[in-house]
Amino acid sequence: MIFSIDRDVLLSQLLTVQKGLPSKTPLPILYAIKFEVNEDHLILTSSNTDVAIQVLIDVSSISIQKTGKVAIPGRYLIEIMRKITSKRVEFALIEDHLIVIKADRSEFKLRLMDVEDYPEVDFLDLDDPIVLDSQVFKNIIKETNFATAQSEKRPILTGVNFKYKDNYLYCVATDSYRLSQKNVKLRTHSKEFDIVIPNKSLDELSKILDGSTDDVELYINPNKVLFKMKNTLFQTRLLEGNYPDTMRIIPTEFPVAIPFNKEELLQAVERVSLLSPRDRETNYNIIKLNLREDHIVEMSSTNSEVGDALEEIIPSSDVIGPVIKIAFSSRYLVDALKSFSSNEILIQFAGEVKPFVIKGNLDQELLHLILPVRID
Amino acid sequence: MIFSIDRDVLLSQLLTVQKGLPSKTPLPILYAIKFEVNEDHLILTSSNTDVAIQVLIDVSSISIQKTGKVAIPGRYLIEIMRKITSKRVEFALIEDHLIVIKADRSEFKLRLMDVEDYPEVDFLDLDDPIVLDSQVFKNIIKETNFATAQSEKRPILTGVNFKYKDNYLYCVATDSYRLSQKNVKLRTHSKEFDIVIPNKSLDELSKILDGSTDDVELYINPNKVLFKMKNTLFQTRLLEGNYPDTMRIIPTEFPVAIPFNKEELLQAVERVSLLSPRDRETNYNIIKLNLREDHIVEMSSTNSEVGDALEEIIPSSDVIGPVIKIAFSSRYLVDALKSFSSNEILIQFAGEVKPFVIKGNLDQELLHLILPVRID
Repeated sequence: MIFSIDRDVLLSQLLTVQKGLPSKTPLPILYAIKFEVNEDHLILTSSNTDVAIQVLIDVSSISIQKTGKVAIPGRYLIEIMRKITSKRVEFALIEDHLIVIKADRSEFKLRLMDVEDYPEVDFLDLDDPIVLDSQVFKNIIKETNFATAQSEKRPILTGVNFKYKDNYLYCVATDSYRLSQKNVKLRTHSKEFDIVIPNKSLDELSKILDGSTDDVELYINPNKVLFKMKNTLFQTRLLEGNYPDTMRIIPTEFPVAIPFNKEELLQAVERVSLLSPRDRETNYNIIKLNLREDHIVEMSSTNSEVGDALEEIIPSSDVIGPVIKIAFSSRYLVDALKSFSSNEILIQFAGEVKPFVIKGNLDQELLHLILPVRID
Repeated sequence: MIFSIDRDVLLSQLLTVQKGLPSKTPLPILYAIKFEVNEDHLILTSSNTDVAIQVLIDVSSISIQKTGKVAIPGRYLIEIMRKITSKRVEFALIEDHLIVIKADRSEFKLRLMDVEDYPEVDFLDLDDPIVLDSQVFKNIIKETNFATAQSEKRPILTGVNFKYKDNYLYCVATDSYRLSQKNVKLRTHSKEFDIVIPNKSLDELSKILDGSTDDVELYINPNKVLFKMKNTLFQTRLLEGNYPDTMRIIPTEFPVAIPFNKEELLQAVERVSLLSPRDRETNYNIIKLNLREDHIVEMSSTNSEVGDALEEIIPSSDVIGPVIKIAFSSRYLVDALKSFSSNEILIQFAGEVKPFVIKGNLDQELLHLILPVRID
């Protein structure tokens, strides 16, 4: 195996496959990145128990003298490529388990792992895919993934539920205290599916989609889903089990609706949270919202040890409905607000002990729901 | 106590006194910042077992209705000031232990600590000070403090030794594996002193000196030193004990001298260190330097598990002396190189098992010394 390659291209592709390296594994071969040098391209593969990633580097940035395949320790290779400043890097297999990497006046000899030990990774693209714009999918992740459960108490809630039916993709995440829901109309047809993708896989995928303008194709397989992008494959396992039916917890009637300027509300909530006591269950700060008779909204927190905070916010336009008092974890509202593109948002209340719903005027088909907490 | 104050000025002064708040203390009153509102100025004080800090805010940014003094919980107050966006903030003591802070439509009520419990802090400025430019002193810290010991095995080495004699300030730091020494000629006379300032205090002081263009006056007291700047006092305890005589370990004759471009050397050292094994005692990476007959310098590392790295560096001008091979912790060389302003540096070798010395052409009276390690 002998080839030379553009350093910037290699580094950027290594940083993509890096997201498939395990942080800890009983199978040390997975610490390696698999290099397959073919006649006119190079394929890099990484995999762990959750995801598998493959990228293709074509002949425009690589010149190949001799084909072959090797397994190179991933983290060392990436550190070396980061620190190298020359434009071009040469790779040559000199012994069975030794590769030489040359760049200007630098020379590294890396001990290889046995490439025959590298487990076969199947990237399955048998079915008709659904097709989305990269940035649309990245946005779905941003709008829902934060609302998944972080604890493993109910494992199914640690992923985002994607349901496809009649050209619509329905995406839902909930940790049972709050819920985020986004619906997207698609250009393409496909057969129905109902899957749950782990939140960590979506985090990694989101970074890979950064800056991409291409389409992404989703191939749904029984236990996994493959995301196919230009020159990049990203495959993740799915969570097993049935996702709860969340439609029934979203209220349908809202006697109170208050419009806010998002930034103003966000800043007020963050200030009020500074002193607020923490919820025993979630460790999040509890704050109170109080719509007064004069249609000014008070946000407040009371902490017997530290002190009190009070903010007055003037709704950005007409308020609908009677006065209301409700308490909730400020963190949930902050997370929800930050996911909106809109600067005008509307909070709809179904009652003082019922979940409330947040929408943005520019964020079509995006809804966040937060459960209140009972206070004295 | 009633006053209003410019928010930006207060925040910036709070961030200075914050450096005197303890991270943990058996004396909870020290978590407070002491506010003393006088007729025409406000004084803020913080203190812990190592340092005490006091700042003065004058009438140009504060308007005082009623004088008084209080102890306000420091971290909460700073968080609030960070999040407030209004230009002006009002403070009013409404009960014995409650202060109201108002800014636009925000209102905070903070429970106070008993200001009478706040320990008296003496800032002693009895003696003739020595006077330095702030940035000169900040530079001394940058050039020496990193070489102090981090472990408490020999407590005296966890500080920088400042010795004053005949208008010269001699500054030395060593962790017994490497040493940094800077000499500065002063404008002012003073009586002789020989003190050791804790490295953590110097770190905090360095941040406070950031961007300052004023002079700083040093008042040396038996157990502490006071740094007096415009409107800011910073006092730190001194380390007790005799600082070792370091002059005798600096070689005086150097048969080999190699000039380098600093950036080139730094990058090569960082790359070679990526694979190098770690020293058992210090956990730092050991690398080898080899001056060849042809006057090219090889830097290399060998790691039986991972692989080898080799860099060739061409000295930036004429080399003096015969071939030499020497091994050392790369981290020490990286630290030393980063402290130089010069881009041309000179490494002088006294022998393969003797300390070597690094100097920069633009860094007058600055010297770094590194002990080699024995290798096979």
